[in-house]
Amino acid sequence: MPSGIQALAFDAYGTFFDVHSVISTCNQVFPDKGPALSQLWRAKQLAYTWLCSLMGRYEDFWQVTESALVFACGSLNLACPPATRAKLMDAYLHLDLYPEVRQALQSLSRYKLAILSNGSPRMLAAVVESTGLKGVCADVISVDEVKIFKPSPRVYELALRHLKVPQDAIGFISSNFWDIAGATSLGLWTCWINRGKAPEDELGFRPDAIIGSLAELQKALT
Amino acid sequence: MPSGIQALAFDAYGTFFDVHSVISTCNQVFPDKGPALSQLWRAKQLAYTWLCSLMGRYEDFWQVTESALVFACGSLNLACPPATRAKLMDAYLHLDLYPEVRQALQSLSRYKLAILSNGSPRMLAAVVESTGLKGVCADVISVDEVKIFKPSPRVYELALRHLKVPQDAIGFISSNFWDIAGATSLGLWTCWINRGKAPEDELGFRPDAIIGSLAELQKALT
Repeated sequence: MPSGIQALAFDAYGTFFDVHSVISTCNQVFPDKGPALSQLWRAKQLAYTWLCSLMGRYEDFWQVTESALVFACGSLNLACPPATRAKLMDAYLHLDLYPEVRQALQSLSRYKLAILSNGSPRMLAAVVESTGLKGVCADVISVDEVKIFKPSPRVYELALRHLKVPQDAIGFISSNFWDIAGATSLGLWTCWINRGKAPEDELGFRPDAIIGSLAELQKALT
Repeated sequence: MPSGIQALAFDAYGTFFDVHSVISTCNQVFPDKGPALSQLWRAKQLAYTWLCSLMGRYEDFWQVTESALVFACGSLNLACPPATRAKLMDAYLHLDLYPEVRQALQSLSRYKLAILSNGSPRMLAAVVESTGLKGVCADVISVDEVKIFKPSPRVYELALRHLKVPQDAIGFISSNFWDIAGATSLGLWTCWINRGKAPEDELGFRPDAIIGSLAELQKALT
């Protein structure tokens, strides 16, 4: 079906990079609290991206991520002085790459590859560098250019402008269902990576394909 | 401080009406699952209002609430055929009023009183009727008029248009912190009802006053 696809745009956080790899740093700082802190940190990070976008009060993903960390620590009664906060935030610049990503991207080299992410340019540059992905994706597109977060249609339109191929020649891949809904709503071909067998959200839009890991993407495209 | 306040606009769900009073109906249908279902249902309902607003794909609060229910049941492996779904949705039209609300509103009769809610007009009319609040608030304002959910500034601007008093003469009261952030961002005087001693969200805006229940509002206004 997606035979005319020329370019692939990938979400970054949760799709290439395991956001919950911060658990090890969280556990170092707050023994045994890593999983709970990481869970709440991520949930609030996402909620804050939606809320500040909807309020028309964009702040970049670094600031939103730090605000979410402050809330999460406070909520779990974990004291987080500046040095601790800096250490935890730094973990976001060195997230783990999901194990299949590098090889999967190598096998997709006939496509124009890009990242389309909520991350600020500085955060994305750091994590792309630290995971050895530099140069693998020709374009690293940050929502910071349009000052609103996913799933605003302005974000997916930004990908169209950067990739310079027709809309029906772009495939968008994300592990975040609501991100898939946003891209599908704009008419892109979409593929949801459902690593954890999560249920689908009821947002009125479904992915064109569903895979269990990026290793299955090439098959979904043919 | 808020001496010039002439009109009070109140959030409805969570502020006047206890959204978790659906637990009893949930428990009837799914024994012992009421609290977990209600929690997930509410969390997804809010997330969906933010996501569909941000996608530019508004659906009214009844539809969003039903979509969230479908997701929550699926996620908890609870079979929810149409008759069950109808019964659970009906509970949303007969939520409990928090015990202090009626008396608190009576003591505030010198102000112009209004509801400013995500609820669809039909949902709001039903719950206002069933809780005996009909006529207590002169105006029941639904976001359905602007086809976007809170905390979009267009929602709080709608209150300004309806109440026909200057912006600094409006007080906005909500138990939802992000709702308070949205109204504060637009310059309204705000009062957060924090019944459950929840931590404040880090959204860049704080309420002008914080109270433990609506019974304390009159004092906060003087």
